[in-house]
Amino acid sequence: MTHLNALKQQVYDANMGLVKHGLVLFTWGNVSGIDDNREFMVIKPSGVSYDALKPADMVVVDIEGKVVDSRLKPSSDTATHLVLYRSFENIGGVVHTHAKWSTIWAQAGLDIPALGTTHADYFYGAVPCTRPMTAGEIGGAYEEETGNVIVERFKETDPMQVPGVLVHSHGPFTWGADPQEALHRAVVMEYLAEMAYHTIALGQDKAMDQVLLDRHFLRKHGPGAYYGQK
Amino acid sequence: MTHLNALKQQVYDANMGLVKHGLVLFTWGNVSGIDDNREFMVIKPSGVSYDALKPADMVVVDIEGKVVDSRLKPSSDTATHLVLYRSFENIGGVVHTHAKWSTIWAQAGLDIPALGTTHADYFYGAVPCTRPMTAGEIGGAYEEETGNVIVERFKETDPMQVPGVLVHSHGPFTWGADPQEALHRAVVMEYLAEMAYHTIALGQDKAMDQVLLDRHFLRKHGPGAYYGQK
Amino acid sequence: MTHLNALKQQVYDANMGLVKHGLVLFTWGNVSGIDDNREFMVIKPSGVSYDALKPADMVVVDIEGKVVDSRLKPSSDTATHLVLYRSFENIGGVVHTHAKWSTIWAQAGLDIPALGTTHADYFYGAVPCTRPMTAGEIGGAYEEETGNVIVERFKETDPMQVPGVLVHSHGPFTWGADPQEALHRAVVMEYLAEMAYHTIALGQDKAMDQVLLDRHFLRKHGPGAYYGQK
Amino acid sequence: MTHLNALKQQVYDANMGLVKHGLVLFTWGNVSGIDDNREFMVIKPSGVSYDALKPADMVVVDIEGKVVDSRLKPSSDTATHLVLYRSFENIGGVVHTHAKWSTIWAQAGLDIPALGTTHADYFYGAVPCTRPMTAGEIGGAYEEETGNVIVERFKETDPMQVPGVLVHSHGPFTWGADPQEALHRAVVMEYLAEMAYHTIALGQDKAMDQVLLDRHFLRKHGPGAYYGQK
Repeated sequence: MTHLNALKQQVYDANMGLVKHGLVLFTWGNVSGIDDNREFMVIKPSGVSYDALKPADMVVVDIEGKVVDSRLKPSSDTATHLVLYRSFENIGGVVHTHAKWSTIWAQAGLDIPALGTTHADYFYGAVPCTRPMTAGEIGGAYEEETGNVIVERFKETDPMQVPGVLVHSHGPFTWGADPQEALHRAVVMEYLAEMAYHTIALGQDKAMDQVLLDRHFLRKHGPGAYYGQK
Repeated sequence: MTHLNALKQQVYDANMGLVKHGLVLFTWGNVSGIDDNREFMVIKPSGVSYDALKPADMVVVDIEGKVVDSRLKPSSDTATHLVLYRSFENIGGVVHTHAKWSTIWAQAGLDIPALGTTHADYFYGAVPCTRPMTAGEIGGAYEEETGNVIVERFKETDPMQVPGVLVHSHGPFTWGADPQEALHRAVVMEYLAEMAYHTIALGQDKAMDQVLLDRHFLRKHGPGAYYGQK
Repeated sequence: MTHLNALKQQVYDANMGLVKHGLVLFTWGNVSGIDDNREFMVIKPSGVSYDALKPADMVVVDIEGKVVDSRLKPSSDTATHLVLYRSFENIGGVVHTHAKWSTIWAQAGLDIPALGTTHADYFYGAVPCTRPMTAGEIGGAYEEETGNVIVERFKETDPMQVPGVLVHSHGPFTWGADPQEALHRAVVMEYLAEMAYHTIALGQDKAMDQVLLDRHFLRKHGPGAYYGQK
Repeated sequence: MTHLNALKQQVYDANMGLVKHGLVLFTWGNVSGIDDNREFMVIKPSGVSYDALKPADMVVVDIEGKVVDSRLKPSSDTATHLVLYRSFENIGGVVHTHAKWSTIWAQAGLDIPALGTTHADYFYGAVPCTRPMTAGEIGGAYEEETGNVIVERFKETDPMQVPGVLVHSHGPFTWGADPQEALHRAVVMEYLAEMAYHTIALGQDKAMDQVLLDRHFLRKHGPGAYYGQK
């Protein structure tokens, strides 16, 4: 599995980025990445302190979840990550946290509405919240079912245009082309969640102007993008 | 009392952990631990600055509260800690703080409801708030009576499943197998308190789904736990 | 004025303490101290950056406000500080800031109610807010009149038991036996202001139980105090 | 363009000041400055990380927006900055951010009311919010039109007395005699925005006393100013 060492480093770096950006407490949160052939996923081990974490600790599992290279157990959320990779074919990295403001919206069971251009620069519409899971789903293959309710929520939404979700009563997941991009979006979602909470408290809870949403999303994404160097 | 040196170090470390996690201002807050025979409690001295604190400053009292090894006075909350050790026989460490969000809930006189899986991972139901103390209790052996109202509140709740409480108009106490675990739970309660406050402000104040609460608490605690390394 | 060098150092230290405790932005805020004979007040110079501040920059004024030892102008709030020293004869240090949460209450024109034991440990009742100043007071000797409305507010309150105030539409002042104690109370008031704001939002805005207030204030203050080392 | 090196350094310093004061996340935000002849504007390049930024990376454009000295693309907000320099003839620096509290007010589409002396020390009245932009403005020369709605909002307000604005559904702009002063005011506006939000939540949303507003603004600004050293 030495050909996965670069991916292990990327996954490690993005996991440490959770700490740097203040998104995790103790051992909470996890980042994964998938190899180019979508055969193997690399993910943080379960319940290991970030202080002690090393790139070599990252756990390799195959696409069905079987640990293929590690003495450590993978994150307890492994099955959720795998469902996302199997369903969203263009994503290369996934982040899950219990970051405060995103989790507040998840606990409230509400979508984070698009209320300004900061949101529009990253998410093409509201950040959706999944439906509550059924007793059967919770009592069964819970982590896999968590992935399934996410995928269900994206039946009519493009996960590349809305690269994140809130799991009801739980917390956020984000994704991207690679672990670093998924991390970047987790940080942004947290910022948006905090601003949306307070914007609504000032009495404004209607979605922003659609033309403005289009303009901002499309000036950073897609063929006509003109933000950044290039 | 040299056989208590290891406990003094543990109690010292957990007290310094209060500072590291931002739970205390000035000399506020205190952590204690009990020895294996439940004969002696080690606790922070009263009103000493954390900057100046050393492991050797930790005060040893016997289970009735008599200082047996120190030139320093023990925390003014000593009697409260002792009631908890005498009543909750499986606990080995106790933390008391005036951490902001937990104290806000205590001042409001409200339980912190279980609103999401972050809560369910640590507390098996709401974090309870004690009833207001009577004039007699406040005017009498106040610190001991504070312990008594906590114990009264746990008549029908298992303190090992709900390892913390809010004292009405005052602030939080948490406990665990040792001082470090009690500290860990104090940090988590503060995080939960902040999220619950804002979740409620978004209009969601009903306790989370009981099946989901069960699943999360039990995947981390009890015989079927599967979180973390083993 | 070399006999005032120790006081200059104390005033400097407390001013730098404002930065350390996050109570000031840019050049905002000021601390003063008075000499034992109550002849000279030492105060921060006006509009000087904390980065550049040195103990020798502290400005000495006499009790009427005449600069007696400095090339620098004293704080624009000098006249307010002097009124407090002339009226509250037991105080030796005064702090003024625009710290966020205290200022929020001042802008709201509301007293900070005593809602828990953290408050009761330091302030024996609500932190009072002054009445709005009249156009005549604002247009006249504004800074001196600011001191006068504070003193007016303490006609029936002991400034040693309630060692701070909010100036309406402006911000907090605190005082103590020396500059360091005044600083300590400014930090505490900010903490109390933040907690009170959120406690009220949870629906609890009634003053705490008077017996509990008595117990906590008196266990730290007065002849029967038993908090801290002795 | 070597005569612009000093301005590049100033613009660079103010851009790094955004990071120091916590006003930006990732590559968000930008500061510009104009040369004394108002021929050339220097501005941050688009989408470059602050970690990697060097003074030499600052982009020089002429007053019409043509890049005259850089391999890098200027900020995507360049056209907005230029409108402000052409319309507000006494300004020498402009800052744009998505700082949280200022952006919250912008998203709410509300002016930040003057609620206390901290506000009055810097802004002579409410910080105005622009009207929503039309579909035509958004779909056309969007960044230039953003500048135009700002200028429109200042038809009856002096931009030297109210040195900042909120762009509706977007975020704040501030300006000053030079980039550093514009930065200073961006930091202050963020502080005012946070305090105003919470002051209003306490039930006080009426503009402060006009006489007090006059007194504070004029003691720091204009011919009778007496704040700071001279």
